[in-house]
Parts: sequence; structure tokens; C-alpha cells
Amino acid sequence: MAAEGERVLSIQSHVVFGYVGGKAAVFPLQCLGYDVDVVNTVNFSNHSGYGRSGGTKTSASELNAIFESMEHNELLMPTRLLTGYIPGAEALSAVSQLAKKLKHAKPSLIYLLDPVMGDAGRLYVAPDVVPVYQEMLPLATVITPNWFEVELLTRIKLKDLVSLQRALKILHEEYYVPNVVISSIPLKSWLLDSLPDAIKPSSDSENLLCISSSTTPISSPSSSISMTTPLSSSTSTIHAQCVPTLPGYFSGVGDLFSALILAHFLPHSTPANPQCTPLSAAASQALTKTHALLQATHDYAMTLPEEERLPTDDELDAANPLRKTRRMRGRELGLIKGQDIIRGVGIDETNTRRLQLWDQFWESS
Amino acid sequence: MAAEGERVLSIQSHVVFGYVGGKAAVFPLQCLGYDVDVVNTVNFSNHSGYGRSGGTKTSASELNAIFESMEHNELLMPTRLLTGYIPGAEALSAVSQLAKKLKHAKPSLIYLLDPVMGDAGRLYVAPDVVPVYQEMLPLATVITPNWFEVELLTRIKLKDLVSLQRALKILHEEYYVPNVVISSIPLKSWLLDSLPDAIKPSSDSENLLCISSSTTPISSPSSSISMTTPLSSSTSTIHAQCVPTLPGYFSGVGDLFSALILAHFLPHSTPANPQCTPLSAAASQALTKTHALLQATHDYAMTLPEEERLPTDDELDAANPLRKTRRMRGRELGLIKGQDIIRGVGIDETNTRRLQLWDQFWESS
Repeated sequence: MAAEGERVLSIQSHVVFGYVGGKAAVFPLQCLGYDVDVVNTVNFSNHSGYGRSGGTKTSASELNAIFESMEHNELLMPTRLLTGYIPGAEALSAVSQLAKKLKHAKPSLIYLLDPVMGDAGRLYVAPDVVPVYQEMLPLATVITPNWFEVELLTRIKLKDLVSLQRALKILHEEYYVPNVVISSIPLKSWLLDSLPDAIKPSSDSENLLCISSSTTPISSPSSSISMTTPLSSSTSTIHAQCVPTLPGYFSGVGDLFSALILAHFLPHSTPANPQCTPLSAAASQALTKTHALLQATHDYAMTLPEEERLPTDDELDAANPLRKTRRMRGRELGLIKGQDIIRGVGIDETNTRRLQLWDQFWESS
Repeated sequence: MAAEGERVLSIQSHVVFGYVGGKAAVFPLQCLGYDVDVVNTVNFSNHSGYGRSGGTKTSASELNAIFESMEHNELLMPTRLLTGYIPGAEALSAVSQLAKKLKHAKPSLIYLLDPVMGDAGRLYVAPDVVPVYQEMLPLATVITPNWFEVELLTRIKLKDLVSLQRALKILHEEYYVPNVVISSIPLKSWLLDSLPDAIKPSSDSENLLCISSSTTPISSPSSSISMTTPLSSSTSTIHAQCVPTLPGYFSGVGDLFSALILAHFLPHSTPANPQCTPLSAAASQALTKTHALLQATHDYAMTLPEEERLPTDDELDAANPLRKTRRMRGRELGLIKGQDIIRGVGIDETNTRRLQLWDQFWESS
């Protein structure tokens, strides 16, 4: 549970139905003991995957009016800041100004910036959002871009281990981000082949890789590290873990994952496991809980009537849009049913998907 | 926990900071196992008690756009509806149309209508909201007006037991509301004197009375009732319980209380206690948990620095508005810290504030 007085200011989307944006992030943070101040950057009926959604975006001036009243009333008192989907550059700039002000007033503020811009090659914000995020990066304590967002922020095409190293180096050294988590990189052969044995997937099923990269050294380096280059001369401490993919697409997973990382990120306490950084420990908890919730959601979706779990088929979907919305509905994250998972009931050392130290990362090529 | 497939559509205010409206209602419903679809009728920085708040109201056309997209996507599938603060008649009419549509499509829909209009003689919505609520009452399964709202809806001044009887009769028989809970009636002498001994407060400290009035008979009438008039000939089954008042004002208590009543209202299961109606059983749970959360909030406020718990003083507050906002901030409901209370941890038969049967209510005058 969160320490006394911990308070998150969450700025992201709101949907009436389903679990993306704030609806995927706020309840888990609350369950884990955080008071959450909730700013809605949009108010929509549902996420865009349903094809149609009603509602409005919150304008920059509306956001500023909210921030100004909070400041006037001395209610801007978060210990942590979480920002997610903010669809336009003007609104994002308003959030950026606020983040600067908060960080200036309280340098210990923990800011998890999720640069929500797109996925798998498709941008879902205005293109002028990208440079605003680049400007904001030095304010962040942790960032949680996906694969595509790393490419957008660094302008590096991730095609081999060297390009991954270069991208992380840029994030740490040019943008001064101390902690980076890339939640789900497809395990192409160049990545699979470069993985140390301890991290290689145990089965042949499709896997994704979760990587954490922190400028914090591990508390007690293992002997294998001390024999090689000392960590301090490397760019960062890398941890990684594979996670089997589940069939089909789930929305809001990244928003949930980022919220769980923020909830479990405790930079001022020494991780129980000496091979962990505070970031890799938080990412391990977030990965474990997110995957367990996804598995439960998948299992539940499989119990639905057949018409609510039809496979993706663009042609049939186009002919009957409700075919798609019914499938979406059955795949909304099961956060409420799965709230014990969020609280960590039944999660212990034996079933934690712990990110493992990748000690030769910076020496590989 | 809520039964499988239970889903609440909640339509009320949103504030970024603090716990009123949806922020007081949604988390408790989620903790108790309900998926909640969350429509924000306003998006404000904080509740109006702070004196200044930034943000916007959601217009009727914005609400309709949201409802229409949800209908189009087959996402209007609540088993329960909860409506609270809706500040204008036009927006309220949009909600009324939706409630009619939902009730028509699913007559078993449980609709808890909290006619949020004002408190202690002061109206905080537009006056033309009142007739719209009167029109909506026949749609409701449960209503939770406060003392002042009962007067507004029935045009009866509550000044003695007879006027209270008349007001309840109007709500049940002219507006066809099967279940009414009035959460907190000041225990003036006419009310105190008419209470049966089992309900009279045990101490001399200031008390409020919570009354439930249900057209559902109790499952097993006690011998004392069967000796008098059979319940079926009375207007309703009345239960009541006193609760000691806590010093000072807390915001959002009514919103929390209504959400807890809705969460615990199980009209199709027989209450464990044969002297209860489903309504009085739900109100007992809601009263117990609300009072325990208030007590915890009060205890916490007492630990704050002195400037955050200064007593109300209109003159000093006017000279220094922050004096008031700091007091408000310290008195925000402690829902997150107190989430175990919401889940019922430590609440059992011995410490439940059970509403007691008031079997002579309709015979008294």
C-alpha cells in the first residue's frame, strides 16, 4: 500500500464505458492506497476501437481553468504525477507548463510520463504533439513508451541491438530520463538471439519482451558484473523479461501497466531483491499483475456467447460494425472482477514475473 | 460482492480533487464488485465549498451525444442506474429521457435516484430542476432525498409526524416510489418524542435520524405486528436508526451514502434478518459504513496541523479565504485510507447500525 500522504495527479482520457486511460489507471492506484486527483483530457462514451464514440475533448483553456483554481485553492499537492493520452499539442503544452511548475515547487515529485502517441506504426494524436513530448522528457522520472513511441521520440528505427542501445542512450543522455520501461517489444530474431539465457523464453509460443533501463545501479552487483565493466561506466542498468502474448487485442493495457509501475515505484527504499533496481522491481510487479489480469480477461471472454468473441475479420467487420463492437466489449479489461490481483492477493516470489538483470547489454552488439 | 454481470451507470458530477459526486460513489461501487459506467455531468477542479472552482458543466447536447454513441455501440447495458448532481433542467431532461429508455428496455433495472437539489434550506441547482425531478420519480426504484429535498418534492413542510407521514404517502402513492430513504433528519423534539424506545438515541449527544420507508413488507412479521394492523394495509414498512452527529461539515456524504445503498440493495434475496426489508438492510449497511468512514475522516482531520482544522468562522473566513479551503481539504472523505470499511472488513452483527422496525409509525400522530 502507498505510504501515508502519497497522492497522484492523473491527467489522461476518460471514457464512460470500459477501461482505458483514467478508467484503467485510477482504480488500481486507489486500490493500492493512493489518493488520486483525476483530470479528464477527453470525455468520451468509449474508446476509439469501437469505431464510433460521442463526447468532447477538453480544451487547453478548460484545462488551465482547472489547474488555476486548484493552485488558487492550494490543491496542487501531488507527490506523483501521471500523464497519459492528451490528444492535441495545445492541451499537452498546458500540461507541460503544469508539470514544470509542480517539479519546480517540489523537486522530489515522481513524474511518470507515458508518451501516448500511437502503436504499431499508427499515430493516434496530432503530429505536432511529438516535439512537445520531446521537450517534456527532461521533467520525467519514468517514461513508458511502447516500441513505436521510442522510435518517434528518438528518430531511431529499432532494427537491431545497436539501434536499441542508441535509442536508450538518447533517452538517458540527451533527454535526461533516468528511467525507461518499454513494455512490449516483439521478439524478432535479432532480439531473441541477443538475449542472455536467463531471459530467453521457455516456450516456443509467441512472446513479447519487457525491458527496463535505469540509471540507478543495482544495490549489490553480482560477481559476474564485477568481473566485467563496472556498471557506473555504462549508460544504465538493464533488466528484461519475456511474457507470452495472448491472442487478440486488448485496449488500455498500456495505461494499466503505467499506473501499476507508478504505484510500485519506490525509489527511496532498497528493493528486497539485491539484483533489482527500484524500476525493475516496479516493472516486475506491473508485468505480473497486468499479465494475470489479461489472462483473466481472456479466460472470461472465452466464456461469452460466440457472437461476442468472433475473430478479427476486417471484411466481415466492415459489413457489420456491431460484430466488432461486441468483440471489443467482451475484451474490456476485467479490473473489477480481478481487483484481488491488483492488491497482490496470491502473488508471491514463486509466481512473480521478475525482470532479470541483463548485465552484458551495453557490451553486446 | 456484486453478483456476476451487475453493472452500474452512474451519472453525476466529477471533481479533480476530493470526494464528492462520482468521486465519492464510483470507487465504493467498484470495491464492492460493480463495473461502473461513469458519466460526468460537470468537470470541476473541486467542490463548490472551496469558494472557487474551475471547469465546465456538460451540456444536454454533449450528454445526448454520449448516450447516443453508447446506444449505437450496444453499450447501454446497466443493471442499475444511479443519478446524482445534474445542475440544469435541460441536462436533467436528457438524463430523464435516458432513464425512461433504459427502464422500458429492461423493467428490472434498479434505479437509485438521488434528487440532489439543496440542503438545509439552500437550493444549489436551478429552480426549474424541481418539476423535472417530480416527473422522474415514478421511474425510480429507490430515492434518497435529504430533509429539504423531501420538502421540495412534496411541497410539504416537515414539522411534525403527521407531515412526515403525508410526505411519505405522497412519494409512495402519488409518485409511485417504492423505496425512500431519508438519510439524516435532525432529531427535533416532535420526532424524538414519537420514536419507539428501541430507536431512541442511547446518549444525549446530538443525533440525526435515518429513516427507510419501503412498500415491501418484512419477510416475517414479528408477533407485535401481527397483533396490530397487518402491514399490507399500511402505506409502507418503516425502519429507522439514530446516528450521532460529528462536529463540522463533510462534503460528499450523501453521494457516498446513496452509492452504498445501491450497492447493498438486493431486492431479490431475502434479508438475513427477518425483521428487515431489502431497503432497510441496504440502508443499515450504508449507514454503518458511512458513519465509520466519517469517524475515520474526523479522527484524521484532528491529527492535522492546527491551521488545517480551524473552526468555521464566517468573519475570519471572509478575511482569509484560504482559511476555509485548508479546513475543507482536511475534511475530504477518507475513502482511500478507509477502503477496508467499504469492503466490510471488521463489520459484523455486533457493530452494524441496524435500522429498527418502527411498526407503529402509521398509527402514530
